[in-house]
Amino acid sequence: MPNSVDAAASATQEIARRMRAAVLMALPLAGLSALPAAAADAAAPQPLQEPAKSLPVPTADISPEMQKFIAAPLNPNWDKLWKTGEETRAFADKQAAATVKTIPAMLERLHVKSEASTMDGVKVHILTPAVIPPENSNKLLIHTHGGCYVLFPGESGTTEAVMMAGFGQFKVISVDYRMPPEAYFPAALDDVMTVYKTALKTTEPKNMAIFGTSAGGALTLEAVLRAKQDGLPMPGAIAPGTPMSDVTKTGDSFYTNELVDNILVSRDGFCDAAAVVYAKGHDLADPMLSPVNGDMHGFPPTILTTGTRDLLLSNTVRVHRKLRRAGVEAALVVFEGESHAQYQFDDRVPETKEAFGEIAAFFNSHLGH
Amino acid sequence: MPNSVDAAASATQEIARRMRAAVLMALPLAGLSALPAAAADAAAPQPLQEPAKSLPVPTADISPEMQKFIAAPLNPNWDKLWKTGEETRAFADKQAAATVKTIPAMLERLHVKSEASTMDGVKVHILTPAVIPPENSNKLLIHTHGGCYVLFPGESGTTEAVMMAGFGQFKVISVDYRMPPEAYFPAALDDVMTVYKTALKTTEPKNMAIFGTSAGGALTLEAVLRAKQDGLPMPGAIAPGTPMSDVTKTGDSFYTNELVDNILVSRDGFCDAAAVVYAKGHDLADPMLSPVNGDMHGFPPTILTTGTRDLLLSNTVRVHRKLRRAGVEAALVVFEGESHAQYQFDDRVPETKEAFGEIAAFFNSHLGH
Repeated sequence: MPNSVDAAASATQEIARRMRAAVLMALPLAGLSALPAAAADAAAPQPLQEPAKSLPVPTADISPEMQKFIAAPLNPNWDKLWKTGEETRAFADKQAAATVKTIPAMLERLHVKSEASTMDGVKVHILTPAVIPPENSNKLLIHTHGGCYVLFPGESGTTEAVMMAGFGQFKVISVDYRMPPEAYFPAALDDVMTVYKTALKTTEPKNMAIFGTSAGGALTLEAVLRAKQDGLPMPGAIAPGTPMSDVTKTGDSFYTNELVDNILVSRDGFCDAAAVVYAKGHDLADPMLSPVNGDMHGFPPTILTTGTRDLLLSNTVRVHRKLRRAGVEAALVVFEGESHAQYQFDDRVPETKEAFGEIAAFFNSHLGH
Repeated sequence: MPNSVDAAASATQEIARRMRAAVLMALPLAGLSALPAAAADAAAPQPLQEPAKSLPVPTADISPEMQKFIAAPLNPNWDKLWKTGEETRAFADKQAAATVKTIPAMLERLHVKSEASTMDGVKVHILTPAVIPPENSNKLLIHTHGGCYVLFPGESGTTEAVMMAGFGQFKVISVDYRMPPEAYFPAALDDVMTVYKTALKTTEPKNMAIFGTSAGGALTLEAVLRAKQDGLPMPGAIAPGTPMSDVTKTGDSFYTNELVDNILVSRDGFCDAAAVVYAKGHDLADPMLSPVNGDMHGFPPTILTTGTRDLLLSNTVRVHRKLRRAGVEAALVVFEGESHAQYQFDDRVPETKEAFGEIAAFFNSHLGH
């Protein structure tokens, strides 16, 4: 197979070139110096030199449908290093238009109704399954969508909420929080809190859960930190999926899974650049942007989901450890071979149903009713 | 730092050289052809080409003591590809002599007493903590040590049992099962079953747990599969730590964490070679050697432990998924940055206490008393 070997080698060179370019572009954004330290600490531990490797597509215990996502080439947009809210929104609008087209068929497959509405001025979508079993009739889930704080506006942000409503048979409110350039940090969190506080007027907190993936996982954690800070009651449970819990590029899998995760691809890629756009100069280490830095004592029962190839594997397990160290009941689900957030890419994939089944079971055993 | 850069580059070359040598040596052992396939399936998914990378030692949320284990160079014995039980035993005896010297101080630190004994002809060590709280007085744990089915004979196999007895305040029986060249598959499992059956005469199964790491994690799973097969009652809970659940070199982290895990290092390394020695020609895919292939319906509550750099990360999460798919209550603990089994290397490391604390809490909430 000399042709495919050449093609692979050439692809590797192209990836390395793009990675170098992305790193150089990202350095000034992050306020870092591109110059190496003049004199490193002689006693400092040396980095591990990992050689180039060829990673076959894993197949054992993975459905053929999920194998296709795992086998997909690197996200072609991974090195889009947006600098402004206008740039992120232009991309988000194009992506949203494509996503929205897929939603009616999914609503039909999962027997879910979607209605746009507002709650105390915040835009939401209300997802209602055709059948709500009696034990779920008093439960309410709040969904915080992902997309690096800048992607998936409007109905395009509801896909995960539709899956949760359909697979779990819960009523779900998906928050269409404000995003750049309309508003910046902490607008997204403010909107989530508005919806939570409004929902508290009609629903017992113990019957409520908050969930979301990626930036939505971070917003889930941030909402609980903010609720603690504001003296609001805790929800009954939360499900942050592969949360962007640390936007300071800290976490071992930012390195070990770099150019292995085919969605986020690199810590110097689009998603961390987008978080910087959203933060608009705010300290990235603030727990309201990097919730792994928050105090998690008193958190409600939490279920976390990730994959072995996820760039945010470390930032998921760090949150899990931090919760457990704070005495919180916390469950961890790690899918074999999956990259960032792939467990919620397509409702027709068995692992997607499995992931939502785990979350639904966790909610059912921890929420009041 | 030109010198350290040169040294790192030279070390990388040396690693690559040793890896190629190890692969070439391992191929005939595994019965594989070293020749590439003449014509690959054109539709087959292409492997991902991961470029060479430099991995800094992770520090966030990791104790300084654990950072030292993570920063350690690759295990110098990783490419020892033993072919006979005599070879494995010669190495095991040397290693055991060094390990045994460290045990008296640990017994003192953890206030545990160790006594050699036998149960129905099988050698065991009985680990008794100075204080057994009343709620643990009727509980009994059975420990199956690790070491690729060939290492840690005699008292050297008890370190994890001492930690469990000390941190969890349980009485623990550590099985000193027969190993090559004295005996081969399924002797280790037979010895574990003998101890389990003997213990059942005096202890309620619901008050018993089985636990162990690596090959000991596999033996834990194999013992439950065998108990099911033989119609024996299930223990109340089990704790397989980073189990060698698949010795057919299947599992994505065998690739993604190759030359990242500084303990096992490679799927073509010492540990999988040792498992082949133990199997002595038996089918490696047999669930009694690769328990991920077993039917896990009816398993007792299970807690699994691994690390993000663990070569067996995949084989741990695959077991977790398989248990959950079978409706079993199963918890997963993944430590940031850790390679294979590092959570139980030293009782003085905070993450070690944390790992055993998680297992003890799980046992306390699932065992009868």
